[in-house]
Amino acid sequence: MMSRPAVHPVEAPPMTIAAVPRVRMKDIQGMPGTLGSLLLRLCQLVFAVISIVVMLTTSDFPSVTAFCYLVAAVGLQIIWSFILAIADVYAILVKRSFRNTAVVSLFAIGDGITSTLTFAAACASAGITVLISNDLDKCKVNHCTRFMSATAMAFLSWFAASPSFFMNFWSLASR
Amino acid sequence: MMSRPAVHPVEAPPMTIAAVPRVRMKDIQGMPGTLGSLLLRLCQLVFAVISIVVMLTTSDFPSVTAFCYLVAAVGLQIIWSFILAIADVYAILVKRSFRNTAVVSLFAIGDGITSTLTFAAACASAGITVLISNDLDKCKVNHCTRFMSATAMAFLSWFAASPSFFMNFWSLASR
Repeated sequence: MMSRPAVHPVEAPPMTIAAVPRVRMKDIQGMPGTLGSLLLRLCQLVFAVISIVVMLTTSDFPSVTAFCYLVAAVGLQIIWSFILAIADVYAILVKRSFRNTAVVSLFAIGDGITSTLTFAAACASAGITVLISNDLDKCKVNHCTRFMSATAMAFLSWFAASPSFFMNFWSLASR
Repeated sequence: MMSRPAVHPVEAPPMTIAAVPRVRMKDIQGMPGTLGSLLLRLCQLVFAVISIVVMLTTSDFPSVTAFCYLVAAVGLQIIWSFILAIADVYAILVKRSFRNTAVVSLFAIGDGITSTLTFAAACASAGITVLISNDLDKCKVNHCTRFMSATAMAFLSWFAASPSFFMNFWSLASR
């Protein structure tokens, strides 16, 4: 009679992947520190500068509160986009991206505030411009074209600002 | 001589946690299907209804494009918030929350669109209202108080709508 081993043969345990850390998100273009982000910042900057210059060349913009607010909001957008563009250039030069949660939070909050202000100013200006040109039909005594151009440029600046905000917010939520 | 078993005893494989699924996010109040979300929806609904009713009681709102746009945008907000409030009530009654990515994406996109439209309409109306009351000083011949109330209510509706959007977007990004 053969002795029966007390321990029965056991298959080798399957390889598990429990130790593999959670996959880190790759740098998606548009996240802070990438070339896409820098391009977005430059778009914001250019459109905002055109908007504020066109608005400032109209002599009568201070008589309408919404236009003064547009100048203030777009001015803030210019300052913010300029600072962030410099930060992006630096990050690209040293070939690093912003991983620090606090920094990305700051970027996301700042982007949220500036883009909301720019959008609000553009909407208010658009309301006034449509009132002057369509509802009151007083384009002959007003700089309708310039008001419209400044408003359109502010909208474009906001268009370029919202992807930055969403990319920052997304990269913050997904870590 | 004892027969040596061909297979050597092997220790039992250690318990691995590979099979445990990734920890599910808890239901944070404000995410779709929670009581917080329902309260936000009701706030949006109430403020939007007050806004549209106040604006419709002014006889001369159709003469200003921005006010017509406010009525349209707030009307859309009412429809959207009403549908989502019903969805929340259903989810609370059957004690489930919305886990499906497609559904939460739909909610996030819809919230983003409606809240942006409401905010734009509120900003445009605010621009016009400030123009009428401060810049032109023509409150005697216009329903300034009603325009202001409708605008303020639209802003409050947007205030209640943005947390819904951010919670949806966050829960989408963090899965």
